[in-house]
Parts: sequence; structure tokens; C-alpha cells
Amino acid sequence: MKFTLQHTDPQSKARAGLLKTDHGDIETPIFMPVGTAGSVKAVHQRELTYDIKAQIILGNTYHLYLRPGLGVLEKAGGLHKFNGWEKPILTDSGGYQVFSLAGTRKITEEGVVFKSHIDGSKHIFSPEGVMDIQRSIGADIIMAFDECTPYPCEFEYARKSMDMTHRWLKRCIERFDSTEGKYGYSQTLFPIVQGSVYKDLRKQSAEFIASCDREGNAIGGLSVGEPAEMMYEMTEMVTDILPGDKPRYLMGVGTPANILECIALGVDMFDCVMPTRNARNGMLFTSEGIINIKNEKWKEDFSSIDPAINSYVSSFYSKAYLRHLTISKEILGAQIASIHNLAFYLWLVGQAREKIKSGEFSSWKDQMVKKVSTRL
Amino acid sequence: MKFTLQHTDPQSKARAGLLKTDHGDIETPIFMPVGTAGSVKAVHQRELTYDIKAQIILGNTYHLYLRPGLGVLEKAGGLHKFNGWEKPILTDSGGYQVFSLAGTRKITEEGVVFKSHIDGSKHIFSPEGVMDIQRSIGADIIMAFDECTPYPCEFEYARKSMDMTHRWLKRCIERFDSTEGKYGYSQTLFPIVQGSVYKDLRKQSAEFIASCDREGNAIGGLSVGEPAEMMYEMTEMVTDILPGDKPRYLMGVGTPANILECIALGVDMFDCVMPTRNARNGMLFTSEGIINIKNEKWKEDFSSIDPAINSYVSSFYSKAYLRHLTISKEILGAQIASIHNLAFYLWLVGQAREKIKSGEFSSWKDQMVKKVSTRL
Repeated sequence: MKFTLQHTDPQSKARAGLLKTDHGDIETPIFMPVGTAGSVKAVHQRELTYDIKAQIILGNTYHLYLRPGLGVLEKAGGLHKFNGWEKPILTDSGGYQVFSLAGTRKITEEGVVFKSHIDGSKHIFSPEGVMDIQRSIGADIIMAFDECTPYPCEFEYARKSMDMTHRWLKRCIERFDSTEGKYGYSQTLFPIVQGSVYKDLRKQSAEFIASCDREGNAIGGLSVGEPAEMMYEMTEMVTDILPGDKPRYLMGVGTPANILECIALGVDMFDCVMPTRNARNGMLFTSEGIINIKNEKWKEDFSSIDPAINSYVSSFYSKAYLRHLTISKEILGAQIASIHNLAFYLWLVGQAREKIKSGEFSSWKDQMVKKVSTRL
Repeated sequence: MKFTLQHTDPQSKARAGLLKTDHGDIETPIFMPVGTAGSVKAVHQRELTYDIKAQIILGNTYHLYLRPGLGVLEKAGGLHKFNGWEKPILTDSGGYQVFSLAGTRKITEEGVVFKSHIDGSKHIFSPEGVMDIQRSIGADIIMAFDECTPYPCEFEYARKSMDMTHRWLKRCIERFDSTEGKYGYSQTLFPIVQGSVYKDLRKQSAEFIASCDREGNAIGGLSVGEPAEMMYEMTEMVTDILPGDKPRYLMGVGTPANILECIALGVDMFDCVMPTRNARNGMLFTSEGIINIKNEKWKEDFSSIDPAINSYVSSFYSKAYLRHLTISKEILGAQIASIHNLAFYLWLVGQAREKIKSGEFSSWKDQMVKKVSTRL
């Protein structure tokens, strides 16, 4: 993997870059649609490519490990071959999922013992095991096994957890560096900064992660319920420390406004379930603001969803029709809203990139944050 | 509307024809995907056109009347404008839906009083009212308001019901012929033959329907639980009586084998929820036979779903991936299976048409009935 920093914004820390992988190039800043179980929910692979213009998608290690399972994925030749998505894939480490299954998991220095949400069967995720699993899934970018602390979180818990995450990282690196990809293309490992909302912990963690000198770095443990200002503060601290010549990935963030603010703080990569999950509940993100399509006000609005967004659904279907589908719980409603929201997110980061290149990012960002936060 | 009979099979009653409407031509025999609430479930409009190659779709009067309601549909300029489907649309009369809501409806000579399944509100469907509603929806082909008798059904009930259906038909015709389309294109009214599984009633009904001399005729009250042989017997009797120079529509039929057998009996048009409903449960109809995609045997079958079918999904996605999506209850599984099954149905009637034109229909049909009925 090779990252080239192409432009930096003079009035912020925003950057435009190019990330080269064996499955193609990624222009940053970028948003990565989440394809939990090997499918971005309600979206066809060709729609990801041609309507949404996704450049990389996520898979969830926890879900893929349980179903379809590594046997099927290995026989298929990896996730790309299994689901037909030929561009880059990033997998999380499964840590977030096993920790959010509170009550059915036990954390030890060795790893985490947990029970499957599908059939209750017992499994263990260890740093080494999770590297092997992601090797088998065949992600281009593999995430370290970490503990994502909740919010709020006691300082002592956060400190001990961070230390364990750092020890786990060493084990991840050792395993990753002593194994090879299974399908003939390169994989790379991103470590993850933790430290909850404590500045000294975040500083310590960022310095440790930076010292590991991997090809890219991630910021975890944010967007878990803390105020947005706190998330920005932590992000800014960490991006000041993480090396500028490597991509920075802020995990699980966020709203369109969050993304714009964090681009300004020097983040290059984002993922979030919000555009698809909220789509299924009738919330649309548009270039003019946020729409709750179930509202009576859209009942006879026959204008297209958002003509500024260059996807089939955004211009073909009307707000009134989408409202009808959503209220009637028609599957097509979820499909249309999911494609639209993802196309909007990709449009937004693409616009940010253009503005960084033309030197207009900061003023554009301030206007855009207001616009995309407006409730229509 | 204009129907031209183009070819007849020398060894059966199968026919190939062309039905011209103001929204385009329909080549018969044809299968019409069901778009209950103005959406063929889990399928985008462009997929209907380019993958499935649908030439006409159905809408359900009962559902559309309740939601989005006539006010919205009229303001949109009719259902075509509302959902963006520019080819022909046929609407049922709502009769089937109100009768299947047993316990919450009351039938009188005037019409049917029923309660909405959505909010329990009380409504009445009369022959005149249902003509007006279908005028407002803007279907190209409007169905008469009839009572679809259940199976089994006592002779006396079937006789009285048929007589009422005939009286209602006269009222439908009177209303339809004294009103005009609301959106500038032609609409036509198809009457419906009833009579349950009683030969003398079917004969009497078919003769009455034929005497009404409308532009097309339908056969109702079949595929409601009776044995297939009984359905074929009734269909054959009725197609012997209905005029040959007008299209014949067999309502709610059926499996691929049912459709082939009924094409051989002189039916031109079909609709059924089976390809989409069964798709959502993991049943696939393919050119080689029927697949339950949830079965273990497809777990590591990475071959495409059905390369004989010329739709994106049928060749792009593998059986193993579709199995994974279906078992994981991913929406994309329902999408893929729905598109594939409909594309298969349209392929099947298209093949039947080609074989009728080339004079090979009967022998091809016998082979194909076996093939499409095989469980793989």
C-alpha cells in the first residue's frame, strides 16, 4: 500500500491524498460504506460502483467469521471473490462487536471469549487469531484487535484498557508480520489509538501508535456517545501526533457535519452505518439538509430527492413516492434511501477533496456544515 | 387498445400476439410482475426495464386506494407519473383483496363494505366506485369488480355469486363507458369469467363475458387452491368460448409449469406474486429447475445463479453468496432473488413466444414443464 499526500489546505489541517492498493486507488478524504456481512445493506454491487461511486467498503470480521465462516470465504478465494466487489475492502477487528455484546463476553489478557448472537456458540478472539481471520477474509486493510472503551469511562479503566490495547497491538504486529496474504495481493495492518476522552491517554496512545510506524493509523473509541466537541478535541490532539505522510482513519464517524469537521482536523478516512441505517428509517441526507421523509410535508412533493447528487435514485424518484414506499414499509424505500444517502456521503467527501485542491476548503466547510445540519 | 393475433401453434391452442396500448406494446404470451403498492417489491424501476424486461406491471387497487390514496395519485398525474414506470399498467379491481379480508367485510348487491387493514377505517367498494378509482389510478387495463369465489365452494353459492358478478359487470361497463380517462391516454375494461370449478357455470359465465364484447377478457376464481388439473380443465373450457381475436388473461396464475400449460390452452396474459414472494423466502426458479437456496448443498457452490437468464443478478452473483445473504436475512438477498425470478418468468414466456412463432411450442412445452418442475 502506498499513500501520497497531494494537497494540504492552508487554513486547516485538511488534506487530499491518494492511497494505492492492489485492488485500486482511493482518493482521500474518503467515506467507506459499511458492508457488515459482505453486503452493503439494500445496495447492489453495481450500484456501489456506478451510483454511489464507492472506492472502498468495509466488512465486519465478527459477522463474516460467524457467517458465512472462514471455510466458505477461503474456498471462494476471499471476500472480494465471494461478493463480487473488486475494489478495496477494509475489515474491522471484531473487537467493537464482541465488546458491545456485553454480558456474553469475558475479557482476559489472552483475548475475548464471547458467544455468537446467532446460535449462542462459544468463540475466542485473540490478537493473533483476529490477524489470521482477517488474512482469510482477504481485506486490503486489516485493523488491529483493540478494546473500544465505552463513554463515559473511568480514567483508570481507560488507562488499563489502553495499555492492554497496546500490548495486543504488539501481538497483532508480530503475527501479521510473520504471515502472508492468502490470495496473492498485499494486505496492510492499521493500529488504533485509544484513550477514551482523556488527553494524556490519547497523547500517550497516539505516540505509541505513531512509533509502530505502520502504513496507516486509526483513531478508535470516539463517536460512542461523547459530545461532538469532545470528539473534535481528541481527534485534533491525535492528528497532531500521528505522522502526516500516512493516512488517518477515524472509526465510526459520523454525521455529515462530523465528517467535514474532522476532515478539517486532518482525518482522511471515515466509516459509519448512519447513512444506511438511518435510510432504512426514512432519514435522508441531502445537499440542502436533512429530510424525515415520513413527514406529511413531503406527501405531495413530486420533486426529485436531490438532483445535486449524481445517482439514479436521487433524480429518478420523487420525495412523495419515497415517502409512500417508506410509510408502506416497501423494501424499495430502503433501497432508494440507502443508495441516495451513500451517494450523498461520497459526494460530500468528493466535494471536500475538490475544495482542498482549490484552496477553498475552510470557508466552504463552514457554510456546508450549516447546510447539511439543517432540518428541512 | 389493439390486439393482433400473430401466430397460432398447430398442435395446441397457444398463440403469439401483440397488444398495443398508449404506453407501449406488449408481446404475448406475457407475464406481468405484481407491483402491489406501486412498487414491484425489492426491484428498482430500471431493473424492471433492463434486467427483467417487463412489458407491463400490475398495481393493486385496494392497496393504492388506501395508500398513497387517490388524492396523491391524481395530483401526481396517475400511477405512471407517481412511480416512474412509463410502460403499461394493469390494475385489479380490489375485489380479491376485500374478499380475502374475511370477517371484516360485508357483501351486498350494492357492493362491499370493508375495513382497512392499515387503520381499521370503513370503506365501500361498488362496481361504479371501483371504475372511478381505477380511472384515477390511471391503469391502461382496468378490471371489472367481481367476486372471486373461494375453493371449495358450494354450487349454489358459486351460481349466485356468478350472477351477482354478471350484474356488477353491467354496472361496471355502464360507468366505464360513461366516463373518460383523466390523463389523456386510453384505458380499457376487461370483464372476468367466474363460476368456480363448475363446468356449466363456467360455460354460462364465459358466454356472458364474450357477449359483452370488450377489448380483452379475463378468467378469475382459479388458482385458489383447486387441483391443477381442475384449473386446466376450467381454463380450457373457457378459452374455447372466449373470442380468439381478443387477449385472454388468467388471473393469479401461477407456477412456471402452470403458465406453460395454460399458454397451451390459449391464455395470453398472466400475473402472480409467486416469483417475488417465493424469492423473499429463498426459492429460485431457474432454467434447470427449482432451487431452495437455503439448502446446505449450495453453501460452497460458487457458480452463478443461472447464466441462461440475461439479467445482471443471474450471472453476477453466485449461489453460495445468495445463500449467505438469504440465511443472514440481508435485504440484498431478497433483491437478487426477486430480480432473478422475475427475469426467469419473463424469459420463459419469451421462449414460449419464440417457440410458438417457430411452430415448435408443443414439444418444447412438454420438455420444459418437466425441467422447470424439477427440484434441484
